[in-house]
Amino acid sequence: MSKGLPKRSEDYSLWYNELVKRADLAENSAVRGCMVIKPYGYSIWEKMQAELDRMFKMTGHTNAYFPLFIPKSFLSKEASHVEGFAKECAVVTHYRLKGDESGKGVVVDPDAKLEEELIVRPTSETVIWSTYKNWIQSYRDLPLLVNQWANVVRWEMRTRLFLRTAEFLWQEGHTAHETREEAIQETERMLGVYADFAENFMAMPVVKGKKSESEKFAGAVDTYCIEAMMQDGKALQAGTSHFLGQNFAKAFDVKFATRDGGLEHVWGTSWGVSTRLMGALIMAHSDDQGLVLPPKLAPIQVVIVPIFKSQEELAAISVKATEIMQGLWARGISVKYDNRDTYKPGWKFAEYELKGVPLRMGIGPRDLQNNTLELARRDTLSKESVNLSEVDIVAKVEALLEEIQQSIYQKAFAFRSEKTSLADTWEEFIEVLEGKGGFVSAHWDGTAETEEKIKELTKATIRCIPLDQQPEEGWCIYSKKPSKGRVLFAKSY
Amino acid sequence: MSKGLPKRSEDYSLWYNELVKRADLAENSAVRGCMVIKPYGYSIWEKMQAELDRMFKMTGHTNAYFPLFIPKSFLSKEASHVEGFAKECAVVTHYRLKGDESGKGVVVDPDAKLEEELIVRPTSETVIWSTYKNWIQSYRDLPLLVNQWANVVRWEMRTRLFLRTAEFLWQEGHTAHETREEAIQETERMLGVYADFAENFMAMPVVKGKKSESEKFAGAVDTYCIEAMMQDGKALQAGTSHFLGQNFAKAFDVKFATRDGGLEHVWGTSWGVSTRLMGALIMAHSDDQGLVLPPKLAPIQVVIVPIFKSQEELAAISVKATEIMQGLWARGISVKYDNRDTYKPGWKFAEYELKGVPLRMGIGPRDLQNNTLELARRDTLSKESVNLSEVDIVAKVEALLEEIQQSIYQKAFAFRSEKTSLADTWEEFIEVLEGKGGFVSAHWDGTAETEEKIKELTKATIRCIPLDQQPEEGWCIYSKKPSKGRVLFAKSY
Repeated sequence: MSKGLPKRSEDYSLWYNELVKRADLAENSAVRGCMVIKPYGYSIWEKMQAELDRMFKMTGHTNAYFPLFIPKSFLSKEASHVEGFAKECAVVTHYRLKGDESGKGVVVDPDAKLEEELIVRPTSETVIWSTYKNWIQSYRDLPLLVNQWANVVRWEMRTRLFLRTAEFLWQEGHTAHETREEAIQETERMLGVYADFAENFMAMPVVKGKKSESEKFAGAVDTYCIEAMMQDGKALQAGTSHFLGQNFAKAFDVKFATRDGGLEHVWGTSWGVSTRLMGALIMAHSDDQGLVLPPKLAPIQVVIVPIFKSQEELAAISVKATEIMQGLWARGISVKYDNRDTYKPGWKFAEYELKGVPLRMGIGPRDLQNNTLELARRDTLSKESVNLSEVDIVAKVEALLEEIQQSIYQKAFAFRSEKTSLADTWEEFIEVLEGKGGFVSAHWDGTAETEEKIKELTKATIRCIPLDQQPEEGWCIYSKKPSKGRVLFAKSY
Repeated sequence: MSKGLPKRSEDYSLWYNELVKRADLAENSAVRGCMVIKPYGYSIWEKMQAELDRMFKMTGHTNAYFPLFIPKSFLSKEASHVEGFAKECAVVTHYRLKGDESGKGVVVDPDAKLEEELIVRPTSETVIWSTYKNWIQSYRDLPLLVNQWANVVRWEMRTRLFLRTAEFLWQEGHTAHETREEAIQETERMLGVYADFAENFMAMPVVKGKKSESEKFAGAVDTYCIEAMMQDGKALQAGTSHFLGQNFAKAFDVKFATRDGGLEHVWGTSWGVSTRLMGALIMAHSDDQGLVLPPKLAPIQVVIVPIFKSQEELAAISVKATEIMQGLWARGISVKYDNRDTYKPGWKFAEYELKGVPLRMGIGPRDLQNNTLELARRDTLSKESVNLSEVDIVAKVEALLEEIQQSIYQKAFAFRSEKTSLADTWEEFIEVLEGKGGFVSAHWDGTAETEEKIKELTKATIRCIPLDQQPEEGWCIYSKKPSKGRVLFAKSY
């Protein structure tokens, strides 16, 4: 029920937290920083997974599974990787418990200390590249295009459901190639897959770009990303694709016999998206009534709510509802008929608005007489009466679902356009950040010092150097030193 | 390549290990006891998952996700559960690493010790029931039918790929019900789903039964299981379904308002199958040439191998192969065309035999002239020449795949029948176990002492008390005390 859902305009952060819980998406668990993904939330994640998995396979990748644990020493093998990841980790030090003195509880058995501690994977480059060493001998073994769906753990201090949790679910692709060019192509191809998914399935426009040196993945030569805009004007990094150069190949000594008889280190990429996308999806489209889901990712696309006083009325409505459901099922549209008599129609209307079901049909006794039904759109909250004698309801629903998908995207796109500003002076820059927020396209001198100073002063970071950046001479908004193009700044999640 | 694959008759255990590695199913990782599931192996697991997931959803279950970590104290809440599971566990004691003195490696930061240790889930009853406490208030919230696909860790000392690994993948269903009867029905329903899957997809006959008291799940009132027979005459427990009574509801204080205004503890079940099924699948059907996969779980159902000397010949064969592939794809049959010129046809034939592809088509220049192809069955290793002018090849392939599926099952069924013996005396019992092996159906006095003694003397355990056990007066083969029915003994994995 949306009753009492906080308003976005009053407390965006509280609105988000409450929405995630009340729409049955996720909740905090008894383990600090770890979430429970509830069935309704998980069913959205499953739709995301299915589509991404299809896209990965279409681009030639296969799935595999690598160990949850990483020997501590592996993390140190790639010098910058250890800097970035060997910090806030869950560390397994023992492998056995035993009964305590009271006989009721358990304690860690001090005799069962591991010789080398194991780290719960924060990301799997190290364990995967140590495996690739055995899988790759020759150019015939390349490219190696593998993806893994897995859970990972990063011991975050401040957590938020979906956006930043100690444990999260994700996929991580890890590929190996003969040449630098091929690896860069792969990095860009997968960034394209992510952008395609974000825009065409999540209905969420994204900017494709490269991270600055200080924001790139620990161990990468280049990190590409897609950046989305949330309704509070903050940016959210929705996916990353890393060109690893030969860094991990060198760290784990992965060489291949080349076509011309030489022996070289392979070139690598890695790329991932996580349950963070759930947070992005929620924040990109939802409103004060609850979730707004793009039809392509909605577990229930259409809900039919009967409006009845007696069981006889319900029976008559059910005949009509079943007929409509069969038509929708035949077209692959997921439809739910909520004929519970323990809840009133008004309660159900609010419930499915909260849950973001794209289309709702209401059918009452008068509708049966007139051969009509009431059709309500979740995204616009508009309603219309449909005369079933005149309208092919299945075709209408199909068209509407497509229209809603487009419409949600257009709305998000217009919002982002409105929230993207140019700034040419420090004053303009500050004014935008403190005022309307959003992306600020501004010149930067290219140094980490300036980037750090701007972050310190404004909390805004360089979200990315857009791939479609136009060469443009200018002066850094902070240092006033020369710059060759604009980058995107924003406060971010 | 099957060259050098050990023979089953000479060293069954070595044959299994080598087959798993050479067929690219899995391998040991750098982390003791944890395996890497390789792409080909994982693609079989994905087919299993997809089918099981469909079956779970058809029976009303939804997926969710619960935390990887379990607070140590949770394990002690259910008295017998802690006995069974709080032993060989991976224990997380710290949440941070820091640079070591050399500046090159990392060490565990002693300042980052957790107040309460976290256990990597060996199974999730405790963390899930602690969550259910908040999800269940009234009979309206029941039944709660949730499944989770996850990784779990049990610190096994002796590990074998797929059969027993420290980390494994599985699904665990956890349900809550209003009544004892409904929970028992659910326990039996899910056992039925597992049996259906094992027999109709894995082509592996199973015995449905109950575990004895000493073999049941720690925390269950009753454990149901399916038991399969491997080619070495050993039994393998392929899935379990537990009736938990109110044990976990009481341990975690999960009560519901009943229909008549009372307040009662709910009734629970849990059930799971794991990547162990991969081991079962491999051992149930494969032969000295390699894997034999039932068509319903084969990632590649048909492979087409062109036999050519020149690129011109290959081009001509490819036209024919493409035509056949299109026909097969249209019927949902997965087909691979291996047109690599880096390997010879003979090598490819052996390779696809090793990988268990159910049907192989060979097409050479003479076949093109005669409009024929050679069709080889993996299960029987038989070959025939098919005249494409006379035979609808797509229909033939469809029929053959179905026939192979049945035939593999029948072969396994006949093998199991042959390996199932009655024993009425201790001498007969020993003779079977030391001779042909397999299941021994024998009388047992029903005591844990006798069960333990038999295990000690023969290494055979009670695999189950079959659900179709016939009442039959008899005398325990060991103690000679009265018994009311036969149970199934076997040595097992």
